[in-house]
Amino acid sequence: MDVTRENFAEALREFREAVAECDFAAMDMEMTGLYESKEQQPHRLDSADERYAKLKRSVETYGVMQVGISLFTWREDGDGGFYEARPFNFNVFPATTVGRAPVETHVGFKNTALEFLARNSFDFNKWVYSGIPFLRAEDADRIRAERAALLGGHQAMVVADDGATRMFVRDIERALRAFAASGERTLRCETANAYQRKIVHDMAARHDTLATRGIDGDVEVFRATRKEMAKLAAKRLRLLDTSIAEARGFCAVIDLLSAARKPVVGHNMPLDVLHAYAKFHCALPPTRVAFEQAVAGFLPVLIDTKYIIESTPAIKARYKTSSLEDIAPVLELEAARDLGCPLVRCHPQFAQTAAHAVMHEAGYDAYITGATFIRLLKLDGGIDLAARAANSSEHGGELVLYRYINRLYMLLGDDMAWRVGGGRSSNGDSRAALDASPVKEKGEAPTSATDDDVDSGALHG
Amino acid sequence: MDVTRENFAEALREFREAVAECDFAAMDMEMTGLYESKEQQPHRLDSADERYAKLKRSVETYGVMQVGISLFTWREDGDGGFYEARPFNFNVFPATTVGRAPVETHVGFKNTALEFLARNSFDFNKWVYSGIPFLRAEDADRIRAERAALLGGHQAMVVADDGATRMFVRDIERALRAFAASGERTLRCETANAYQRKIVHDMAARHDTLATRGIDGDVEVFRATRKEMAKLAAKRLRLLDTSIAEARGFCAVIDLLSAARKPVVGHNMPLDVLHAYAKFHCALPPTRVAFEQAVAGFLPVLIDTKYIIESTPAIKARYKTSSLEDIAPVLELEAARDLGCPLVRCHPQFAQTAAHAVMHEAGYDAYITGATFIRLLKLDGGIDLAARAANSSEHGGELVLYRYINRLYMLLGDDMAWRVGGGRSSNGDSRAALDASPVKEKGEAPTSATDDDVDSGALHG
Repeated sequence: MDVTRENFAEALREFREAVAECDFAAMDMEMTGLYESKEQQPHRLDSADERYAKLKRSVETYGVMQVGISLFTWREDGDGGFYEARPFNFNVFPATTVGRAPVETHVGFKNTALEFLARNSFDFNKWVYSGIPFLRAEDADRIRAERAALLGGHQAMVVADDGATRMFVRDIERALRAFAASGERTLRCETANAYQRKIVHDMAARHDTLATRGIDGDVEVFRATRKEMAKLAAKRLRLLDTSIAEARGFCAVIDLLSAARKPVVGHNMPLDVLHAYAKFHCALPPTRVAFEQAVAGFLPVLIDTKYIIESTPAIKARYKTSSLEDIAPVLELEAARDLGCPLVRCHPQFAQTAAHAVMHEAGYDAYITGATFIRLLKLDGGIDLAARAANSSEHGGELVLYRYINRLYMLLGDDMAWRVGGGRSSNGDSRAALDASPVKEKGEAPTSATDDDVDSGALHG
Repeated sequence: MDVTRENFAEALREFREAVAECDFAAMDMEMTGLYESKEQQPHRLDSADERYAKLKRSVETYGVMQVGISLFTWREDGDGGFYEARPFNFNVFPATTVGRAPVETHVGFKNTALEFLARNSFDFNKWVYSGIPFLRAEDADRIRAERAALLGGHQAMVVADDGATRMFVRDIERALRAFAASGERTLRCETANAYQRKIVHDMAARHDTLATRGIDGDVEVFRATRKEMAKLAAKRLRLLDTSIAEARGFCAVIDLLSAARKPVVGHNMPLDVLHAYAKFHCALPPTRVAFEQAVAGFLPVLIDTKYIIESTPAIKARYKTSSLEDIAPVLELEAARDLGCPLVRCHPQFAQTAAHAVMHEAGYDAYITGATFIRLLKLDGGIDLAARAANSSEHGGELVLYRYINRLYMLLGDDMAWRVGGGRSSNGDSRAALDASPVKEKGEAPTSATDDDVDSGALHG
């Protein structure tokens, strides 16, 4: 489902329902760039802290143009079942206004990143013209406080110290006093520009009984009782809140995803996770350790398919690549051949995404990532392959999966796992991670206590 | 004429001919943003050096998406005459490749700047998909030197210190030695990625008699005499030069404009001039004074219509605005009413730009700027209006124009002129500027010696 600001309200309703019942989500993003210079690029010999600083800088430098989130739900089907996918392709563009006032965001792009997207048919007009706005909660709060202070008229008035402005202020003050003393219903103040309009609004606000409204590029002053003034202020606050909610836009999707506490799968996902956090949740913590802890409260269960492939010798040896573009179609063919029926199907209303098959469209890539994850679990060289050979793969998924939870693919020296989130154990043994994770077989009692905060979505391996 | 990479070669030919015969050019640009933060915005109380630093920073932060250049040529027409306009709208995007190797450029954008362009129907797909590449001469020289060194095979080979790479290097060296000693014609080295291909090319280059070429993702090694090697290297250098010329792209237009030494008119043009210099000519000098001198060698005669309006009391009092969008249509109507025939006409092949009339399309804005300039000269409250009243406006243009040469609109305290280029006099009297400028009546002897380097295009005021 391709989502722009035009169909966002409808898509948000669908997403809310789908995320509540899904077993896991897969996520992918298209960005405006990766690293500004050679020095900023990840290097195998980086320390973990250095790497975090590089990723953080990338995320703070570049923008997100598309967020793909594909929701996967297990459907029983006679003897077996299948995963039903609902891929959403969200086109996003930083909110440009709250009400009529501009909200400015500076973003970088790499010429080669945009050209790469162009080679994959990216629609830049859709991005700018129809991108869903987004504005983080902390920015929305700051803007709300600023605007609410303006509505209250309690801010200090800053007036330029030039002859023309001084004369304008004097004339307006004279007119306001005469109006307040008169029997007239309204006073129209002619203004030449936004700056003069602001001066009139501010000056009228100093009179207890005068209110203002914009009218055809001028300002109209009118008389109001204290009660009417309060009512007017309340109405304007409501309008402000409505326009802030509109500007928050896509952040509502990430709020829902975070609140659902479902596993989120990505392919080579550190940058995706950091972008999701920094763009739609809140500013990145300054240190790596603080981020590793904070992410547990944001997306508690992360699984990286690139890490699965690279860290599982039987898979790596068999496919010789961890590129999603290369491995996904091979896995799809194998699964079709071995199973005789698809393990993954698109929800009928979402079939277009899979049919169009545009690699590097975020919605499609998210769908392919989730499908690859499901097929990889079947193939994991360890317990699952053996279990499959013995025709009893029932618990394979659970037994194997714990190894991959909250380990993001990141080459640092000979290590390839960035361990994030809660439930990490110190000595490389991550069984503890499974205990704290939502990944278990449906209908089975958890093997140990699970975090109540975490939804018990199941993964059918 | 809308120009993309598809019709650039043809447009460049037309531009070359037109710029040689034109009397002056008008220029406008669409940019990806202006100022990153409030602190970076121009302030009336800036010192001239502070302002230059702010403009320089803007230019180094943001990109140019469209360059409009409209060339104006005086055509005799029975008793009178008219200016014939040829507006070019160049869509430009930083070169992404030289040959097949990427050239990366980091650029910033403001969300509100792109939204502003969207409100004016800007086509972002045309920008990325079809923008004419550009690469400054100094960057092209650097890239040429790097690539030429690679072709010569004299660069140091840097090899990653990991087991797999060490094994690969050992195998390739063994194979190369065996091949050199054998009677085989070619040796195909299978490679898994670009890094391995580079290793093979580099290692073969160390053998005096072995040459390489890429072939279907692998590298083919073949035997070559010293003469053949030299021929091959020369051919590759020619290919490199061809692809560098392609990447230089739009810079050829600015080179032609600069070499023509014609007056260039803009509206509120400091940023346009700095962008033209920094993006298509060479890096901006670090100091304001150095730039003011350097610009004389780049575009020797600059005229800013906003400065004309703001600094001429009769014009400012009559129109009460210096916004191009507001004043241009009024001037057009007045000129049509007073003269009974248009003073400015579009060349038939370029009529589409004027007919479409899309404000904030750079080509159209350049056309309107040039047309406004011509009409403003007729109206200058000083000498020209008086001359017109006396029905002898023949020399009005020249007599008035000298006041506006190489003064760009820039509010600094009570001053509004940024004086750039050569021929400036110290005490605000700028008659000297006219003497050094190309602006004089056609067919008249120059009133004083003119710089031979400067073309004697004429402006009919």
